[in-house]
Order: sequence, then C-alpha cells, then structure tokens
Amino acid sequence: MNYMITLQYEGTKYAGWQKQGNTDNTIQGKLEAVLSKMTGEDIEVFGSGRTDEGVHALKQIANFHTDMETTDSEIRNYLNRYLPDDIAVIDVTEADERFHSRLNAKSKIYCYRIGKANAKNIFERKFIYQYEKKLDVAKMQKAAKLLVGTHDFKSFCNNKKMKKSTVRTLYSVTVQDMKGEIKIYLHGDGFLYNMVRIIVGTLIEIGQGEREAEEITKIIEAASREEAGFTAPSKGLTLMDVQY
Amino acid sequence: MNYMITLQYEGTKYAGWQKQGNTDNTIQGKLEAVLSKMTGEDIEVFGSGRTDEGVHALKQIANFHTDMETTDSEIRNYLNRYLPDDIAVIDVTEADERFHSRLNAKSKIYCYRIGKANAKNIFERKFIYQYEKKLDVAKMQKAAKLLVGTHDFKSFCNNKKMKKSTVRTLYSVTVQDMKGEIKIYLHGDGFLYNMVRIIVGTLIEIGQGEREAEEITKIIEAASREEAGFTAPSKGLTLMDVQY
Repeated sequence: MNYMITLQYEGTKYAGWQKQGNTDNTIQGKLEAVLSKMTGEDIEVFGSGRTDEGVHALKQIANFHTDMETTDSEIRNYLNRYLPDDIAVIDVTEADERFHSRLNAKSKIYCYRIGKANAKNIFERKFIYQYEKKLDVAKMQKAAKLLVGTHDFKSFCNNKKMKKSTVRTLYSVTVQDMKGEIKIYLHGDGFLYNMVRIIVGTLIEIGQGEREAEEITKIIEAASREEAGFTAPSKGLTLMDVQY
Repeated sequence: MNYMITLQYEGTKYAGWQKQGNTDNTIQGKLEAVLSKMTGEDIEVFGSGRTDEGVHALKQIANFHTDMETTDSEIRNYLNRYLPDDIAVIDVTEADERFHSRLNAKSKIYCYRIGKANAKNIFERKFIYQYEKKLDVAKMQKAAKLLVGTHDFKSFCNNKKMKKSTVRTLYSVTVQDMKGEIKIYLHGDGFLYNMVRIIVGTLIEIGQGEREAEEITKIIEAASREEAGFTAPSKGLTLMDVQY
C-alpha cells in the first residue's frame, strides 16, 4: 500500500526536511521514526521537495509504502499523537502504487513574508523576516515580472556542484504590499537549492535602491551566483501548496 | 504628560503582567525598564488589569506619566526597538492627565480557545488548550447563558483572601463551535483572579458530561471555590479588548 500524507509544520527548530545521517532533527526523520514504530517496518518517506532548515510548510505532500493492514485515519491519528506539536498531519489517503510525491509534482507555490519597519508582528514573528529599511514595492513588482517564464536560474542557486539542469519555469512572482508586511508569492514547476530565498534577497536589494529592477535580466543571463543578491533568511519562507 | 499605550503580547514565557519584586520577567517590568531607560526617570506603568502567567493579549491598555519632552511616535518606536520580540506596541497617544488604564476601564473581552481532539493546530498551538475528549457544545452554550448577569462570582475566584467585593457583571458568554476548535468569548465589567479560567474549566466539565448545565446556578449560589470546576490552563486565554 502507498499512502499520501498532507502535512504542515513550523520549521523553526528543524534542520529542514531531509534526513541527515544519524541526527533525526528533520521532518523526514520524525515521520519515518513514527511510521517505522507504528508498522514495525523500516519506512522510507518521500517528500515533494526538501524544505531548508527553518523553512515552514502550510501544505507539504509526502508518501510512503507499507505492507501493514491499516486505515487512513488510523495512520493520521497515530502520526498526530506521536509527532512533535510543531508537525501536524492534515490528511492521509491511499494513493496509486506508482504515486511519488516528488516525481509526480507538477508545481509548487511558496510565500515569503517581509515585515515592514516599525510594524512589529508578535503573533506571526516566526514566519516573518523583519526588515528595518523602507522598500519600494513598485520597483520590486517590476523586477518580479522579469523573473517570470522559463529561464536558466543558475544565478539563483546556492548549489555550486549542481550537475543537472538549472532551467526552471516560474509561472508567477507576485509582490503584495499589505499593512505591516510585504508578501511575495512564487509559483513554479520546480525550485533550485535556495532559489526562492535568493530571488527574495535580490528583490529586497532592488526595493531598497541598491540595484535597479532591470538588472534581473542581466543577472539571469550571467548564470553566476555572484551576480544575484543575498540569500534571505529561511524563517520568512513557507511552502504553501504542491500541485499534481 | 500622561501617555496611553496599546500593546500586544504572547504571554508564553512571562510570569504575567504584574511586576514581582526584583525579577523583571513580567510585561509590566519589561515596559518599565525600557521607559525608565528612555526617559531617565523611574517610570511606573499602570495596566488595565493583570493578566496571569502565560496569558496573551491581542489588545492590552496601559499608561504612564513622564516629564520628558517627546512625541507619541518616538515613544512607540523606542519601545518596539527595545522590547523583546513577543511584546509589541501598536499605538501610543497622549491622554488626559487623570486617565488611569485600570480605574477608567469599563469592560473587557477575553477569548479562550479549546482545540478539539484530532485537530492539531501547529501554527496557533501556543494560544490553544488542546483537549482530547469530545465536548458537547450545546450543553456548554446552555451553561454559558446561566453565567450572564450580575452575580457574586466568589466560586470562580482563586484568591481566597479576597476582601473586596466579588460581585461582577458578565454581559455575555458565547461558546462558538468552529472547525478544529471551540472559542469562548467573555465580556464583563471586570474579572476576579483566574475567573475566566475557572469558568472555562467548569464549562469543559459540563461539556464532557461530568456535570449538568443547570449546576451553574447552584455553583454561583454556593459562593465557594470548591463547587466550581478546574482552572483551565493559561495558554488558551487571550485578552482581546479593553473598553473605556
């Protein structure tokens, strides 16, 4: 049996999604430990993608195979009972035997939240990167448009040893000016290592006047990490949705 | 000059509102420390009421007097800069010299959030008391109606040495059945020590069938703490508003 899990997590205290050797301070590690205990099998959990250390998920998709006879709700309740209180399973459903949460994912939506100067947000502070300089949102919106489309995003990838293609398609990059915060939504067919955070860092540098919006095209063309902006902190980033 | 402060806080790591001797792990203590540093005076901050250890505030009102020549926004910005990241000042305005945040308060609204069994809420978990047994909301709503009005709430007060009147007026007690949680709103002219939490504890005991809704009248008449239910945990409680 192949089960699809829909889950949420606050990434603050985790070393990201992907299991790392013997340390189990990862979302994948926590899920595998609980499911292996439940089934008595050595369960491997596949995620739709690896969220970085400190990144959150409002909706993440994973799947795992088991021979155990059980039900969707039994798995969900067991997971919610034994997972830490910052990881929640929203839904468990039986999936086609060939379903793979990463290989079948068609697109993902991320949201990055930037807190404005003098707007202290207590209740959401773990999900917002507080930025003390004033940002020109119109400039950021102009730059965002230049990112949309199919491009080689090598300049926006922190993995220097990346051997596979760095071409990805961004369907939309939306910069919303809200009361107290700026929200940047990114919808794409896939994202390179730290890609969202480097895009956001670059947009911030444009918003504060260090760079011009038009530089985006030049940065893409350079295909060199040095040309893009800083990597924005992980705490502001949340995986919002995975589409199949 | 007398300044009125509108503030928010997550109470999780504080020993409540009220300053306690030399420890400054209180909201009042944090505010006084920052304001005394700013003005060079020995500032005393008056709150609209004392929230307990671990209780949150979406809107709390305080005031303080100073001889310093400054502006509303200077005070607000200074406070937000130097207060910890779980306390935020929303607004500072000059008030009438005779304004006192507690003595002039006409009513307050509190909200208590109870998380339902199997509904794990990751993002709001510090503001919700997760309750694993099923609760009969209709019974709780029936009991809530019996609490409304002017009564001696001595049974709902954890201060046994209370010498002042324990008569208070509850304008409304509303139990809302929502997806994943039950919200209880209480609007009253004043609240005794732990009063909201004991009311909620009693309503929970009614909801799970340990007591009948009609018992509320008997509990009020008894004027004895032993007759009421348990004191619900502080984490579920938030001060929503103070009215003048």
